[in-house]
Amino acid sequence: MKRTPISQVAGHIGKEVKVAGFAQTIRDQGSIKFIILRDISGVVQAVVLKDSAEAMEVAGRLSTESVIEITGKVKSEKQAPGGFEISAEKISILSLADPELPIPVIEKGQEETDQSIRLDWRWIDLRKPERTLIFKVWTLMEQAFREYWTKNGYIEIHSPKFMSTPSESGAELFEVKYFERKAYLAQSPQFYKQMGMAAGFEKVFEVGPVFRANPSFTSRHDTEFTGYDVEISFVESHQDPMNEEQKAIRYAIEKIKEGYGEEILKYYGRKLVVPSLPFPQITMKEAKEVLGRLGVPSEKDGDLSPEEERKLSEYVKEKEGHEFVFITEYPIDVRPFYHMRLETDPSLTKSFDLLWDGLEITTGAQREHRYDVLIKQAKEKKVKLEPIQFYLNFFKYGCPPHGGFGLGPSRMLMKVFNVANVREVTYLYRGIKRLAP
Amino acid sequence: MKRTPISQVAGHIGKEVKVAGFAQTIRDQGSIKFIILRDISGVVQAVVLKDSAEAMEVAGRLSTESVIEITGKVKSEKQAPGGFEISAEKISILSLADPELPIPVIEKGQEETDQSIRLDWRWIDLRKPERTLIFKVWTLMEQAFREYWTKNGYIEIHSPKFMSTPSESGAELFEVKYFERKAYLAQSPQFYKQMGMAAGFEKVFEVGPVFRANPSFTSRHDTEFTGYDVEISFVESHQDPMNEEQKAIRYAIEKIKEGYGEEILKYYGRKLVVPSLPFPQITMKEAKEVLGRLGVPSEKDGDLSPEEERKLSEYVKEKEGHEFVFITEYPIDVRPFYHMRLETDPSLTKSFDLLWDGLEITTGAQREHRYDVLIKQAKEKKVKLEPIQFYLNFFKYGCPPHGGFGLGPSRMLMKVFNVANVREVTYLYRGIKRLAP
Repeated sequence: MKRTPISQVAGHIGKEVKVAGFAQTIRDQGSIKFIILRDISGVVQAVVLKDSAEAMEVAGRLSTESVIEITGKVKSEKQAPGGFEISAEKISILSLADPELPIPVIEKGQEETDQSIRLDWRWIDLRKPERTLIFKVWTLMEQAFREYWTKNGYIEIHSPKFMSTPSESGAELFEVKYFERKAYLAQSPQFYKQMGMAAGFEKVFEVGPVFRANPSFTSRHDTEFTGYDVEISFVESHQDPMNEEQKAIRYAIEKIKEGYGEEILKYYGRKLVVPSLPFPQITMKEAKEVLGRLGVPSEKDGDLSPEEERKLSEYVKEKEGHEFVFITEYPIDVRPFYHMRLETDPSLTKSFDLLWDGLEITTGAQREHRYDVLIKQAKEKKVKLEPIQFYLNFFKYGCPPHGGFGLGPSRMLMKVFNVANVREVTYLYRGIKRLAP
Repeated sequence: MKRTPISQVAGHIGKEVKVAGFAQTIRDQGSIKFIILRDISGVVQAVVLKDSAEAMEVAGRLSTESVIEITGKVKSEKQAPGGFEISAEKISILSLADPELPIPVIEKGQEETDQSIRLDWRWIDLRKPERTLIFKVWTLMEQAFREYWTKNGYIEIHSPKFMSTPSESGAELFEVKYFERKAYLAQSPQFYKQMGMAAGFEKVFEVGPVFRANPSFTSRHDTEFTGYDVEISFVESHQDPMNEEQKAIRYAIEKIKEGYGEEILKYYGRKLVVPSLPFPQITMKEAKEVLGRLGVPSEKDGDLSPEEERKLSEYVKEKEGHEFVFITEYPIDVRPFYHMRLETDPSLTKSFDLLWDGLEITTGAQREHRYDVLIKQAKEKKVKLEPIQFYLNFFKYGCPPHGGFGLGPSRMLMKVFNVANVREVTYLYRGIKRLAP
């Protein structure tokens, strides 16, 4: 007999089904036992009656969260959740759970267990339907981005994570013992997605881990995370990658809302809004002026603090009714040497960040593809040329003008679900003090 | 004026177009110059005539592989490739290539440049249409696998690459300086995809890098490569993941053939065959008997050498007309402790490898999900329990029976293109001696 997903049991009233999943709740009323069984698709109530002696005996040995298989008839039952239940004729134990669960799966009427304890037992924490939902949405979101990219002629790359030199800067770098020498873990696919442009690939995307030895304990940081990276050729300015990005994000949010909008509202109270195009834009200079008028203290010239990001997003939301805003034209001192500079003001770069509801989810720019200019800018920034000569060479034998961005899917999900901590939307968080499970 | 992809220029005869790409060939016939321009979609001939003085002047300064933009009218021209050409009115140089190209893009009438030199200048090597094709096919193949998985209810995971202990064995492990301690790079997502089963995710897939400090220099090995990993719950035996795998592979090959079958045949002489279902199967015991009869020397009991894999595939192809064959029931001494054992013969595991035309592309198994049995098997294999207690815990609080496999996309592509070396189908190969570019 084939297993029926629990979400489809309702269609089998009067018929026999086989279901399997976790015994979420076991209620013993002496001559009758109730089991709430949970699989990936939902929950169903099974009832075990005295006259099914064998099933009764097995049910008597069950512990909460054991994995079982139940065979029985689906019957209408007014008092059961959903108006039906399975009358268990046979129960098989596939995996008996230790009766002492370290954390509860259903935390009714109590404060949720402390996050660090939940992370210790992450796989039990993930059994909660509202947590599983996060990864169903991640799956859909990633597929939506990929649909956008593959339909629009992008080539997918998987660039190496081992490098002989840092990809961004020497700071926050992980060092690997690599046979008789040292290697470093890529802090982003930046150099290698640009290599794709020099290879004539024209449009590339990459999804993969990026590694940052970030010593901070904030709710937004981790030592490794998944990055979405995009680079496109024959751009005229940073407006081209911005345009590609906003279209892809809109497409993804549309798909998420379609697929899981109701569940996100139900479990997280978040009403997803499909953003209109184009997203609002503001230059860094204008942003600082606005923030000054609002009386928000500026911590650093040419860059925004988390507090400034929040206030600016609030301002844009109020003024334009939009959750997104691009900040453009960052000054050269807060951007890496490879960002192209504005023709009209070479103290500014053709760069952008994207804020979603106060959180930075993207950094992007048009890159400098002219070999001589790139070298000049590297020297100005006191970047040593020799270790990055392999990168500089990409621009020596013909390379189209290009630009791109990096997008953090876990940051996107923080905003999709309105959760404040990246650890909740990461399958298994890694931080300075956390390498387990 | 909007840029026209070169593949669409033929539809604009009599009209003006703007095209951009690499100047693949420049032929100077004095009063007339010809440029073969290449973009991601194809090549087109542009002609520069004396009466376009400005364009003529720019064309005179061009070096091969420079990136340029050409504006001009599309004209029928019998002698041009494809029967038309662009009469260049304006040429802009976007990026002037150094006249001394380290390796040629078009290697007509000569032996191809040595592989290790081509890898030094990988981005120029990748400009060759037959190499770009590999990554167009990779993009399509990966999207096809994902379509199969997402349509069938799989959840995508991105598991951490930092671990506190080895995921597979202590051998071939990369060590990372992790703040004040050590971490190790995941040799596979094995433990964490199994965690997804304990979390009740039921079906998961992951695409990501795996790291192996493999000291060998073979044409099949590298120190990091992309892995496709799958794990599914409520399996009855290893036949369930095998069945899922063969369906996904068939789907992907169908899509590849549809999209690029002709180009693969043209450039690589490989006629793709969509495999029929089910794939042939043979137990390891039967395989050894067959190979014995064929007179192929056995290097190791219960495992196949590359030579044996080739001969066995030849045998199956001749006998059953099939390029694929599953080898099942590997003995316990060549499989890790977490592979489930056969009820009928506990010296054998519920495991499989998949060969495609003589090359191993997969290893898979049903896993042991019973905590007590798992511990017993680990002890028998002399695996230290303490470092993997976090993994063993996954099975302590309820875990469905499950199984899965790992699939190497670069090995798939070696067979799609009939190339003997994994370096040709990897965006940027990493080996003991190679960390650059």
